[in-house]
Amino acid sequence: MAYHLWSIFSCLLVTCFMVSLPACHSGKVLVFPLEGSHWLHMDILIKALHAQGHSVTVVRTNKSWYIKEESSYYSSITVHVTDGVDEGFVKPILNKVLDIERGKSSALNFFSLQVEALSFMSKVPKMMAEMVTNIIEDKELMKDIKETQYDLVLTDPAWGAGVLMAHYLQLPLVYNVRWVTFGEGHQVIAPSPVSYIPMTGSGLTDKMTFTERVKNMLIKLLGQVQDRFLVRPYYQAVCDEYFQPGVDFNELIQGADLWLMRVDFVFEFPRPTMPNVIYMGGFQCKPAKPLPQDLEDFIQSSGEHGVIIMSLGTFVKELPSDITDEIATAFAQLPQKIIWRHIGDRPATLGNNTLLVDWMPQNDLLGHPKMRLFVAHGGTNGVQEAIYHGVPVVGLPLFFDQYDNLLRLQARGGAKIVTIATLDNDFLKALQEVLQEPSYRENMQRLSKLHRDQPMNPLDLAMFWIEYVMRHKGTAHLRTESYRMPWYSYHSLDVMTFLLASVLLILLTTVAFIRCLCFRMCCRRKMKHE
Amino acid sequence: MAYHLWSIFSCLLVTCFMVSLPACHSGKVLVFPLEGSHWLHMDILIKALHAQGHSVTVVRTNKSWYIKEESSYYSSITVHVTDGVDEGFVKPILNKVLDIERGKSSALNFFSLQVEALSFMSKVPKMMAEMVTNIIEDKELMKDIKETQYDLVLTDPAWGAGVLMAHYLQLPLVYNVRWVTFGEGHQVIAPSPVSYIPMTGSGLTDKMTFTERVKNMLIKLLGQVQDRFLVRPYYQAVCDEYFQPGVDFNELIQGADLWLMRVDFVFEFPRPTMPNVIYMGGFQCKPAKPLPQDLEDFIQSSGEHGVIIMSLGTFVKELPSDITDEIATAFAQLPQKIIWRHIGDRPATLGNNTLLVDWMPQNDLLGHPKMRLFVAHGGTNGVQEAIYHGVPVVGLPLFFDQYDNLLRLQARGGAKIVTIATLDNDFLKALQEVLQEPSYRENMQRLSKLHRDQPMNPLDLAMFWIEYVMRHKGTAHLRTESYRMPWYSYHSLDVMTFLLASVLLILLTTVAFIRCLCFRMCCRRKMKHE
Repeated sequence: MAYHLWSIFSCLLVTCFMVSLPACHSGKVLVFPLEGSHWLHMDILIKALHAQGHSVTVVRTNKSWYIKEESSYYSSITVHVTDGVDEGFVKPILNKVLDIERGKSSALNFFSLQVEALSFMSKVPKMMAEMVTNIIEDKELMKDIKETQYDLVLTDPAWGAGVLMAHYLQLPLVYNVRWVTFGEGHQVIAPSPVSYIPMTGSGLTDKMTFTERVKNMLIKLLGQVQDRFLVRPYYQAVCDEYFQPGVDFNELIQGADLWLMRVDFVFEFPRPTMPNVIYMGGFQCKPAKPLPQDLEDFIQSSGEHGVIIMSLGTFVKELPSDITDEIATAFAQLPQKIIWRHIGDRPATLGNNTLLVDWMPQNDLLGHPKMRLFVAHGGTNGVQEAIYHGVPVVGLPLFFDQYDNLLRLQARGGAKIVTIATLDNDFLKALQEVLQEPSYRENMQRLSKLHRDQPMNPLDLAMFWIEYVMRHKGTAHLRTESYRMPWYSYHSLDVMTFLLASVLLILLTTVAFIRCLCFRMCCRRKMKHE
Repeated sequence: MAYHLWSIFSCLLVTCFMVSLPACHSGKVLVFPLEGSHWLHMDILIKALHAQGHSVTVVRTNKSWYIKEESSYYSSITVHVTDGVDEGFVKPILNKVLDIERGKSSALNFFSLQVEALSFMSKVPKMMAEMVTNIIEDKELMKDIKETQYDLVLTDPAWGAGVLMAHYLQLPLVYNVRWVTFGEGHQVIAPSPVSYIPMTGSGLTDKMTFTERVKNMLIKLLGQVQDRFLVRPYYQAVCDEYFQPGVDFNELIQGADLWLMRVDFVFEFPRPTMPNVIYMGGFQCKPAKPLPQDLEDFIQSSGEHGVIIMSLGTFVKELPSDITDEIATAFAQLPQKIIWRHIGDRPATLGNNTLLVDWMPQNDLLGHPKMRLFVAHGGTNGVQEAIYHGVPVVGLPLFFDQYDNLLRLQARGGAKIVTIATLDNDFLKALQEVLQEPSYRENMQRLSKLHRDQPMNPLDLAMFWIEYVMRHKGTAHLRTESYRMPWYSYHSLDVMTFLLASVLLILLTTVAFIRCLCFRMCCRRKMKHE
């Protein structure tokens, strides 16, 4: 009953909202986006802002590979950087991950993967620091930016340029966020007890054994060390060079006015949060549109068996042929039709039931009534779309947060994870299990119902809060000043030390006093006896 | 511009919401309310539930002084208790507070106030335990309740009967909450660092010195001791008697599905929160209705000076004559007209500009354009109404959370607090300062704008979430299981001990190894020399 709450209700609500809201003055938004799949969802926010009558300026680098210079709905500023991070950065990491997964790894291989990952980790902040320096040093550009009188900076804080520039320009700061420059966003803004909040990359859920909690703690400590020595120094150098003395980059990260978080609690494990964190998970999802005729015909030819789609996301388009052969072999044994987003050689074992495509209208396919299963890598976008449309998932995670994302679906009974290492054995079994066992579909349908049952469509909620920041020039009353405290004060260690010392002092004084008293009494008795 | 956002927009929104929401099946709600001013706001929720088509059963005791047995919008169950808490309980506490405030206190007086407060503290859980026992033991009543198949229990958890009964009946549990059986609600459900979250009764804000943080910590510890020995034992006894072994009352309190919190962050200091806490602060506020003609005439006679209202809330109707004389003297010296809710003897010094009333339409008066100032005791209802209508406050706190509530307004520049002790010196000055210094009004108007600028009217939001609990039979995915962990695991003390011990062991082994090595080398050298 509540399942169609959104589709029936949100149109009315949105129309009503948009009409009756005494629209915020036409705002000016300065956007510092991130590349790759991160740009895809930032682009959705930018389009929505444009549709609301706001003007958007996107700051990109000359090395941008996704963010176009020309656009009908934003203007852009291109900043020169010497060493960009391009789309190719994934390939060496992917190859090493695949080698390790398939047991072809040596200790050297594993070590070189770590070096590759660490080198990438410090490459981004280096590029961002250069970007910010080049903007600040460009007097003409800075004059233009200041004269435009932007209302706020909108950024994806996994890359830190927007955070630095918002502080330099003294503008309110809004995040489209899941990751900050190092680690998951919540870890930075909200209390995050290590005892039940799994670190990203830990492969743990919110229910941990003692050993798992030890592992979680070690991962947290290791992350802090990496952040301290590999990431933060680049950003801190900009603070030290251009800002008032004592400005700490971590405080700037924490001090954002608004955190538009790209998850919701249908997806994420429940955890503490803060008043200026707004959950817009699934803001990119929308009802399915009709498909191109050839795709529709292919789907209809599946009869009662229905259709499976497979995509490994923005970054991974090609896989080694032995892996694609294993996947194709498994697909060929199913009665379903399969649409597979695959670039590269045609697998030798491809069945007649499988259609290879360069690109697919993923959201429209997932919303098709004949959709039975989604073979996904576990990117946030895909996982949220699977939840929105209630489609069960077989997960094939490769790197980053993909395993953790799929784990959240698996923990709720909506997905089954298969690793590349055991693909030949497990993939077909996993497909058959998820197709035949009704609980997977039922659980995803339940998650879909929960996700859609919100007082407001997540994209409209995000727009409301961005305009709220414009109207009130920030969110001072929603932000704690807690992170400006030294860590020992925040955790009351100084107070506890003082109280313990006081108790100890009182105890010692009392003991000393009693001993003194006893000694005197003994002396007297002795004297009497003598 | 955004100021009238609500008034223009929420009507449309609400209408649209109510019409298009595929209304939850007509639900059945079992309510365990609290007396006094707490009943006033529970009554608003009950009326709203009734208006939405749900049927409500209110469980009251034979000693209830506010909750009527007969009503047009709810049915009731009356449970017999031997020793109720009646309206008179405030009087002895108030008298002692006033004596202490006016310097008439002796050490004995102060001691007897503590005894009075502690006795009241344990009187409520005793009554609640008796109430629950009597319900459970009444086979006929229990049969009726079970057969009715309620959808959820709605309760104000400052009194614990609803919490116990929800567990006994295995029903989803919804709170209309600011206080739980002991202390402020957030303290129980969300991480609450003592370093910047002031305890109720501490008179502290979210910015504390070291000494204040020590005070805050001591108040927290004292509170935990009082809870442990005065309050919890009564509730725990019911758990031990009627529930499965090992059921802990504190876990039941924490395990509620939904916390409809009677504050928002325009009022409360920003702090960590949880996914199942919904802020409905100000849900009782509404635009002002026209006043009765005599009141309107009185107000209009104030000319450009405008009007002041004074009320000390539900519990305090009478004050000693020396205090009321001081208040009346101050009022008489103002050019404003004053409407004063006062029961008791007419103060000898009452000016012509002051009208005494038994009762006043407080919300309608606060929304009147000629309203200049609100003299308030600092109950949550009044403070939220002052925020809603943007009226500055002179606060006259007496007990409970009143000082803390007013402190929140004062910290934001919208109120000035006066104590009974210095009334004769400070009251007139405070009134004149708040009337003449524009910043008080400006700050309250700013708070009002912020409060009204929400995606949804708080009462509608509360209704949405109550029905959400009905639709999904709870909020399992929004609740952490963290509170089921032992405290040392939750705080990772076991993990940290293990890690420290491991590091220590490695260090000691290394040192022992090196010493052993050195010793051997020394021995060899010695042997060589010999």
